[in-house]
Amino acid sequence: MSQSHLKLVSRVRCFDGEQRRYEHLSEALNCTMQFSVFLPAQALRDEPVASVLWLSGLTCTDENFSSKSGAQRTAAQLGLALIIPDTSPRGDDVADDDAYDFGKGAGFYVNATQQPWAKHYQMYDYICKELIDLVCRSLPLNGQMSISGHSMGGHGALVMALRETDRFASVSAFAPIAHPSECPWGNKAFTGYLGDNREHWHAYDAVELIRSGQNCPPLLVDQGSDDNFLAEQLNFSTLREVADEFKLVAELRMQQGYDHSYYFIASFIEDHLKFHKSYLKG
Amino acid sequence: MSQSHLKLVSRVRCFDGEQRRYEHLSEALNCTMQFSVFLPAQALRDEPVASVLWLSGLTCTDENFSSKSGAQRTAAQLGLALIIPDTSPRGDDVADDDAYDFGKGAGFYVNATQQPWAKHYQMYDYICKELIDLVCRSLPLNGQMSISGHSMGGHGALVMALRETDRFASVSAFAPIAHPSECPWGNKAFTGYLGDNREHWHAYDAVELIRSGQNCPPLLVDQGSDDNFLAEQLNFSTLREVADEFKLVAELRMQQGYDHSYYFIASFIEDHLKFHKSYLKG
Repeated sequence: MSQSHLKLVSRVRCFDGEQRRYEHLSEALNCTMQFSVFLPAQALRDEPVASVLWLSGLTCTDENFSSKSGAQRTAAQLGLALIIPDTSPRGDDVADDDAYDFGKGAGFYVNATQQPWAKHYQMYDYICKELIDLVCRSLPLNGQMSISGHSMGGHGALVMALRETDRFASVSAFAPIAHPSECPWGNKAFTGYLGDNREHWHAYDAVELIRSGQNCPPLLVDQGSDDNFLAEQLNFSTLREVADEFKLVAELRMQQGYDHSYYFIASFIEDHLKFHKSYLKG
Repeated sequence: MSQSHLKLVSRVRCFDGEQRRYEHLSEALNCTMQFSVFLPAQALRDEPVASVLWLSGLTCTDENFSSKSGAQRTAAQLGLALIIPDTSPRGDDVADDDAYDFGKGAGFYVNATQQPWAKHYQMYDYICKELIDLVCRSLPLNGQMSISGHSMGGHGALVMALRETDRFASVSAFAPIAHPSECPWGNKAFTGYLGDNREHWHAYDAVELIRSGQNCPPLLVDQGSDDNFLAEQLNFSTLREVADEFKLVAELRMQQGYDHSYYFIASFIEDHLKFHKSYLKG
């Protein structure tokens, strides 16, 4: 399998489109990776469509969002493709940790600089440099792309949108880890992957990137008020403060009674896809 | 825990309603059971609502449909509750089999007469006599109910609708095992649970019940043309023939390219719930 080769693992009819799973050898990650794609009917007729890149949370693979979000229904209606990567490098020779919040399933969308992680844990470059290029070359996509994600993936979506200027038409997140330098999940992951120097953490911290003056595409965030992780891990109010202070084009919504689960995502994914569609051409 | 007592195991906000899981001691099954319920916002305000009873397929628990079908979105829109039982008795002292298509996760919605199954495998009575009564007494339901299901659960839905005259306003199924007496899955299960006398199988065979002249409420069936089990297990064309012959109020649709998975169910569950809503009062 060459590095640019996509192997189709499965394809299933879904809302008149197709839910597919692909495998490929990643140069950035030094391992074989799988990711999922939803293609709406238009794309199956080889009409290039815009897409939304979805980044998943801790412990997920590409399959959680694919099977639980119900996003394909709205994506089919709007003629959007969904690109759904895995959350870390995979394989028997990839370093791992027993905890659910570090190692496999917990790549935190950074380029690791510390050992033994640096060899494989290059998730930022994998997604921003390798995967986006690969899917835009290989699938019927028009190159127009927005980005969204949940929890750790909401962090990843915010960071990529703030750093990759002009790449994403819009960005959204569900319960993002908005300020990872200042929460236990982020502290642990950044210390492990990036080392003790907190200066190096700021390139992967949405709140710090906004404070540094980075441009942000139009932003939508939903946060459940009954989310068990809200108080300790997510820093929603800090994100709101910096979004106000730096006058981002942003809507940050507190959703009463919702938790951190896929039932929360399923309830609002239609809003997010319609938000992205309004900024995507084609 | 008394036999009429419902213990709330979890509740999660979902589409402005609640996805709940309950536990109770089942008299019919002689074991502790869990089931899931979706209550729309109206029911949370104690306005009694109509409901759809969903029966799941082989290997499922109450969680597969809950997390993968996306049904809550349409149920919330229509003000319908969803009642989602497990597929077999559960617990360490319940007889089991190594195969995926017999024993736990594969109760086939029959009252077993053979040993060692008869003590616990009374799924027909559990659902029709015990569970429906329990939820109608304990939850804000108005008693109006329709029934639906997938594969083994489609079989269960058809059989219950044909036998429990006037209980269900309408019935639907996704890829049902329509004629279990004449397919390998049904043959194995019915031999094991009911014994060798095929006369005893007909009370649990939708095609045979239609042939015997049982009334059927309005019926909707979706079947995927790329379903791996279509040719050997499902007998869709026989169901279509007897539905025609006995002039049922029925629509049986072959959906091109769809398979047996929850992506198929997710694609058409909105149609099914709207179909049921048109026959349900309140």
